[in-house]
Amino acid sequence: MSAARVDAVAEKVAERELDALLVSGEVNVRWATGFTGTNALAVVGKDVRVFLTDFRYVEQAEEEVDGGFDRRRGERDLLGDVRGALPDRRPLRLGFDDAQVSVRTHARLDEQLGEGIELVAAGGIVEDLRGVKDPEELGLVRTAARISDEALREVLDGGLAGRTEREVARALENAIRDRDAEPSFPSIVAAGPHGALPHAEPRDVAIPEGTLVVVDWGARYHGYCSDCTRTFATGELDGEAGEVYDLVLRAQRAGLEAVRPGPAGKEVDALAREIIVEAGHGDAFGHGLGHGVGLEVHEAPTLSKRGEHRLAAHNVVTVEPGVYLPGRFGVRIEDLAIVTEDGTEVLSSFAKELTVVG
Amino acid sequence: MSAARVDAVAEKVAERELDALLVSGEVNVRWATGFTGTNALAVVGKDVRVFLTDFRYVEQAEEEVDGGFDRRRGERDLLGDVRGALPDRRPLRLGFDDAQVSVRTHARLDEQLGEGIELVAAGGIVEDLRGVKDPEELGLVRTAARISDEALREVLDGGLAGRTEREVARALENAIRDRDAEPSFPSIVAAGPHGALPHAEPRDVAIPEGTLVVVDWGARYHGYCSDCTRTFATGELDGEAGEVYDLVLRAQRAGLEAVRPGPAGKEVDALAREIIVEAGHGDAFGHGLGHGVGLEVHEAPTLSKRGEHRLAAHNVVTVEPGVYLPGRFGVRIEDLAIVTEDGTEVLSSFAKELTVVG
Repeated sequence: MSAARVDAVAEKVAERELDALLVSGEVNVRWATGFTGTNALAVVGKDVRVFLTDFRYVEQAEEEVDGGFDRRRGERDLLGDVRGALPDRRPLRLGFDDAQVSVRTHARLDEQLGEGIELVAAGGIVEDLRGVKDPEELGLVRTAARISDEALREVLDGGLAGRTEREVARALENAIRDRDAEPSFPSIVAAGPHGALPHAEPRDVAIPEGTLVVVDWGARYHGYCSDCTRTFATGELDGEAGEVYDLVLRAQRAGLEAVRPGPAGKEVDALAREIIVEAGHGDAFGHGLGHGVGLEVHEAPTLSKRGEHRLAAHNVVTVEPGVYLPGRFGVRIEDLAIVTEDGTEVLSSFAKELTVVG
Repeated sequence: MSAARVDAVAEKVAERELDALLVSGEVNVRWATGFTGTNALAVVGKDVRVFLTDFRYVEQAEEEVDGGFDRRRGERDLLGDVRGALPDRRPLRLGFDDAQVSVRTHARLDEQLGEGIELVAAGGIVEDLRGVKDPEELGLVRTAARISDEALREVLDGGLAGRTEREVARALENAIRDRDAEPSFPSIVAAGPHGALPHAEPRDVAIPEGTLVVVDWGARYHGYCSDCTRTFATGELDGEAGEVYDLVLRAQRAGLEAVRPGPAGKEVDALAREIIVEAGHGDAFGHGLGHGVGLEVHEAPTLSKRGEHRLAAHNVVTVEPGVYLPGRFGVRIEDLAIVTEDGTEVLSSFAKELTVVG
């Protein structure tokens, strides 16, 4: 973990005219401090870098936390130790992550901080910084993507038709674990009409021949996630399934083509969505086009109607349009890509043309 | 999922003089509605039972959600749909889970609800109800505990000494998955000095002979968790390790003995803690004695210095004192138990006397 991240946080804190930011939430704390445990807070500002954890994690923090942090042991409920971690001057403006801190925690914190310390809503500082990956992070995401693709190749060697969705999902997750990684989310393996559920759970049902199978899977390697989807055929399909596949593929390619530094997430979403809307399937594409990926499977930036942020170099994003026809079938095609200076580095290595797996 | 749970929520809502409660958070929503997806809200009151989810989960909700709920499809961001789900009368008092709802969500919700609707902090209603399990839930926890014990027995047949911590943890998790369950948390397998980290991660390091190995593991079966810890020996130990083991075992038995309807969590904690404090190891037992277990590995009630709630029949709790001597070794012994009318039904079937595993 590099001190550059903490410096970047301190800079944003100063820009917002805060004396310090209370960094909370497991993922934000991990990103900013390197700590991988579950109970910790950090206070970061121009002249303060304090890391707080409880009894259980003191040794782990000694191994993991650098970046110039003053490591302190607090109580299990760390809120009572925040005040003592702040610079002495008053008045003092302390930012907190309002998207993450609960109403109750905020009230208790406010009470414990006392006079002269103002709590200021400052959500998104760490999330926005996390959206732009450093070279170490990009390397870990690349490895996660490679591992997940290797794992699926191994599983597909055994075919799809005749195995249950659950068997395939389980084999895939084992193949990921065999490669020193873990699944970044529960794998989706959904055949035929079940594929029309965007978040289907694998069933103890044999995959038939001549159907579409949606496989959505990813690996987590040293904390960093990959995320990819392919829709395979288990034999010849009736005409409309093939047509819908081609439609989704065209939309996916158009979306991916538009990914580069500059456009807002919602602009990229609109480009791909338009293609599906024009084909009359707009209602069947009810989710966003994609999302950022990193320490979390879903993080900034958002590629959807709500995606106001402009894409930047070293974002890592998915592009994953889908068309879901209830009772019939679903198609989703998803690539994971690094935003480069002038386009993308696509990390998903599977072909996107409709592939028949027996 | 029984309508009795929703009725119980509605009753608590009326007791607090609320017109309705906004049930949020995946686990609370699952418990109250049966829905296992990741984006949903429920509104529950005497005369209102609305379930909200987005496009992706509409079909899943049709399969899973009963209990008399009016199921509605909202936007991805469901907050905008809450107002339309409320009874028409004004003024209206809407409870929300202040321990779970973020400051930002609260502010947005408040803005969208508009005049005549008061948001009232009402955290803990669902958590407290969840603490007392119904027969179906107790059955699932029993099965989870049985699966996790069977899985560890299978793994111990292969011995401990000479295998790496990671190999053992991986084998244990595979054995759990072989039994149609999943690990309820990342298993801890920590030998020698590594066992002094209460939340140690398994390493690629071979387990030596003649040391203590802390194994903390659990299974999740149909959503319900088990949680157990045993500390094994891989051969003869030096005198103090054995003494500390006996101390922790005495404290564990005293704690477990005190579990029944009536005492507050902190009273049970104090009984076990006193034994460790008197032996001079109070500082080495830095966590609480135990916690509730159910849909979450850690839930109500709390058995620690902060445990104000009185234990009740059909709580499911752990009793898990530990002594951690940095640089040397750690001992933790944990049982999972159902609180019965007059004592406990212990679900952990492993012996608690020090067991040597080669």
